[in-house]
Amino acid sequence: MTERLYLFDTTLRDGAQTTGVDFTLDDKLKIAALLDDLGLDYIEGGYPGANPTDTALFAEKRSYRAGFTAFGMTKRAGRSAANDPGVAALLEAEADAICFVAKAWDYHVHVALGATLDENLEGIRDSVAAAKARGFEVMLDCEHFFDGFKANPAYALTCARTAFEAGARWVVLCDTNGGTLPEEVFEIVGEVARHVPGDHLGIHAHNDTEQAVANSLAAVRAGCRQIQGTMNGLGERCGNANLASIIPTLLLKTAYAERFSIGVSADRLTHLTSASRRLDELLNRSPNRHAPYVGASAFATKAGIHASAVMKEPETYEHVPPASVGNRRHVLVSEQAGKSNVLAELERVGLTVAKDDPRVARILDEVKERESLGYAYEGADASFFLLAKRMMGEVPVFFEVERFKVNVERRWNALGDLVSFSEATVKVKVGDEELISAAEGNGPINALDAALRKDLGKYQRFIEDLELVDFRVRILNGGTGAVTRVLIESKDGQGETWTTVGVSPNIIDASFQALTDSITYKLVKDGVGI
Amino acid sequence: MTERLYLFDTTLRDGAQTTGVDFTLDDKLKIAALLDDLGLDYIEGGYPGANPTDTALFAEKRSYRAGFTAFGMTKRAGRSAANDPGVAALLEAEADAICFVAKAWDYHVHVALGATLDENLEGIRDSVAAAKARGFEVMLDCEHFFDGFKANPAYALTCARTAFEAGARWVVLCDTNGGTLPEEVFEIVGEVARHVPGDHLGIHAHNDTEQAVANSLAAVRAGCRQIQGTMNGLGERCGNANLASIIPTLLLKTAYAERFSIGVSADRLTHLTSASRRLDELLNRSPNRHAPYVGASAFATKAGIHASAVMKEPETYEHVPPASVGNRRHVLVSEQAGKSNVLAELERVGLTVAKDDPRVARILDEVKERESLGYAYEGADASFFLLAKRMMGEVPVFFEVERFKVNVERRWNALGDLVSFSEATVKVKVGDEELISAAEGNGPINALDAALRKDLGKYQRFIEDLELVDFRVRILNGGTGAVTRVLIESKDGQGETWTTVGVSPNIIDASFQALTDSITYKLVKDGVGI
Repeated sequence: MTERLYLFDTTLRDGAQTTGVDFTLDDKLKIAALLDDLGLDYIEGGYPGANPTDTALFAEKRSYRAGFTAFGMTKRAGRSAANDPGVAALLEAEADAICFVAKAWDYHVHVALGATLDENLEGIRDSVAAAKARGFEVMLDCEHFFDGFKANPAYALTCARTAFEAGARWVVLCDTNGGTLPEEVFEIVGEVARHVPGDHLGIHAHNDTEQAVANSLAAVRAGCRQIQGTMNGLGERCGNANLASIIPTLLLKTAYAERFSIGVSADRLTHLTSASRRLDELLNRSPNRHAPYVGASAFATKAGIHASAVMKEPETYEHVPPASVGNRRHVLVSEQAGKSNVLAELERVGLTVAKDDPRVARILDEVKERESLGYAYEGADASFFLLAKRMMGEVPVFFEVERFKVNVERRWNALGDLVSFSEATVKVKVGDEELISAAEGNGPINALDAALRKDLGKYQRFIEDLELVDFRVRILNGGTGAVTRVLIESKDGQGETWTTVGVSPNIIDASFQALTDSITYKLVKDGVGI
Repeated sequence: MTERLYLFDTTLRDGAQTTGVDFTLDDKLKIAALLDDLGLDYIEGGYPGANPTDTALFAEKRSYRAGFTAFGMTKRAGRSAANDPGVAALLEAEADAICFVAKAWDYHVHVALGATLDENLEGIRDSVAAAKARGFEVMLDCEHFFDGFKANPAYALTCARTAFEAGARWVVLCDTNGGTLPEEVFEIVGEVARHVPGDHLGIHAHNDTEQAVANSLAAVRAGCRQIQGTMNGLGERCGNANLASIIPTLLLKTAYAERFSIGVSADRLTHLTSASRRLDELLNRSPNRHAPYVGASAFATKAGIHASAVMKEPETYEHVPPASVGNRRHVLVSEQAGKSNVLAELERVGLTVAKDDPRVARILDEVKERESLGYAYEGADASFFLLAKRMMGEVPVFFEVERFKVNVERRWNALGDLVSFSEATVKVKVGDEELISAAEGNGPINALDAALRKDLGKYQRFIEDLELVDFRVRILNGGTGAVTRVLIESKDGQGETWTTVGVSPNIIDASFQALTDSITYKLVKDGVGI
């Protein structure tokens, strides 16, 4: 008989505090769908009334399997919950649950709120009761709970008890400053659980000592039954507890799997890696390849002392099976391993080749050769697909580029302003037809792209809906003389996106390679014949 | 009376297993100096005999305060330590200590080594004894210790005891696959400490459940007195235990500070942030801004529910003082905070201005304005220095760029090869002198740089020793139409390095800004008059 643990995701609320992260309404809806698909119990969407995005988010009913939660402060001192504009806005929110936040550290009640300890308790009591009366499931985030408990245990406990007695389903103990250690969390939660039943206690940890995951699990061992965290550990400063690490640990580690059950099924768990990567894509962050469970390197073994042994029985070098979290093993240390990797890659991009097909070895050699030059196919499926298909002789030559030229010029114009012009000319051969096009752009690559796609003759109509959505540049060895790797992400009218790569000491050449690959991929995938 | 804890850094050995990390001998020497400066007890340099770099590293005596340690395997079965080439190479190493690695999981002894359990024990005994006889301080990494202990506790313990009895100063318990949980580590280490004294036990944790730091600290609480880890958590897969997080926790958290002492002084701790950043720079990795203690955002508060309160007493929102680890507070939410930030920045780059100097507010506005355009001065001190000095009217106009032009052309040459040419022309005005220079390069920016620095008239001799050492590009909003940020790192004959930034929708313009800033900075810092 297992106990139920509840997962509360605050990526959209506390995660919005991440430096450099700024969600649009559309982002929030996409991410909420992503989280809901995983089977989380609560999704905290934001703070209605605090900003237009969050107000719009809660203006209409959103239906998720998860309890869609609105966040906000308890009422201010000197007014009733009904007359507090902040609380009023919350009560109007189209949400299943409301999560209030209130100070649990006496010091902060005085300094930050300038209120009395009793006024703060009254704020908790009345706000929880008001929301409950409106039919919401109610929770209270006890801000600074652990620091507060160390300073004044009695008051911190009273805040928690007050919320519970006022009808809060969950009383969440927050380590707001993130400096509490796992052993302290374990001890303090154990103490609190003697006053508020553990199945009404939640933990909200931050990663300031790199122990947010350990703190969350310590709290569970001490009695908490709700865990608050974010996907990929997004959050202010060093981030919140990382659900992408906590979820697999709960499901795959016997110590937890035997004791607890969660809303995420083993089947849903296989979506975890792609959910994590898609979140990063949405936020235009490059995924942390070293992230536990979901990182591209989480199950990678570099040639080293383990290599030969890893070959024999990889699983004895893996603490969990990569597939269980939808991730893949990478053992890039031998022909053998390389081959199976290439086969896996081919399968992933939808090309099936027999294991003993001699072309597999040739593709592997080509990939190795190109990776040594700086190409990275991990992130450029479309270029890998083309490379493989070309070696199978299945990619027609739609067009040939005879030459191109890019000019960037900066000078003072007649009006005395310093202006820059970028202009490109591209000459392509399509069949017997020779086409030359010129275009301007804001920057050389933009101009080159415009010129290249201006007129591809009989193929032009197939690429009209092609659009560049992202452009990333890495210098591989440092120094301007080094090799430049360009990754280009493209999109078409069918909403499909694909990434191509180009490498050269010359950033223009590298970009041009990626651009032509992108066009060719579009033509191939749409089955255009020559 | 505190107990001594020993810190063992394996950045140069296990950290070398990081995907994408490949140390040169020069890298290793620079990093070792960085680590030694912090006051670590042991620096593991590498695996002599395994590759030319590590062999060269240990070919001559290196003197560090830390014990310089060579890593390698225990002798193979069927030969004596003296006749084992691997062990022989190790014994020849110019090192203070030798850290052997041996399997402690019976299963792996069979599968990976194909040896008997006794042969493995003999390998441990003889190798440790041989190194000890040569006068080395000796340690043994018990590979797969925790998985091994779960499978066959008696054998895992015997491996540990055998090393200790053979004279190993340290017996290190390794969680090689990284899947062990803190509570398991605590329990197992407690058990081991009843057979091998804790002040001879070390812990080597990996981050596969995001708990390497918690595992290391749990081991210490259970009796281990040596912690193995890496700077910035470098290492295979998800990395090793991050010393940049463990060290400040040991020094700044009462629970540890009261019980233990370490070789890192409070004074050295203030070097931690720069050491962490410099390591990333050396490896050309962009620092993790969310890293605990040392990340750029570790003490940053984004405008949010806390903002106003944070203003009142920032320290009550910080689990430790940022300055204690050489980091800085970022509260970018008010004129007030902004001003103090700018003042701190000015001081950092060596410019002292009175707090109430009206120019501070103007500099702040300029910085905010430029940051909104995509400039980032965090990583570009030289550009910030120039911006501030310009606003103080202290930067002479050494030269003016009248115009520049860059051409990149790609075509088939007479030999039928596809070739690219990059050529740039720059016209500058130095005083009344007008100078026009042209140059070729491998890529447009390289050509532009060459042309710009070809002839600066009377200033030319001052920039002859200027050298570009790194060039980084970020696209800020995605899409080729987005803004491009270029960071350029320069170096001169005095070995000084500085970074400048340029931002524009046009990568060429952005690069050119950073290039001209770099030249101007060089002239200003060398006190060149006009």
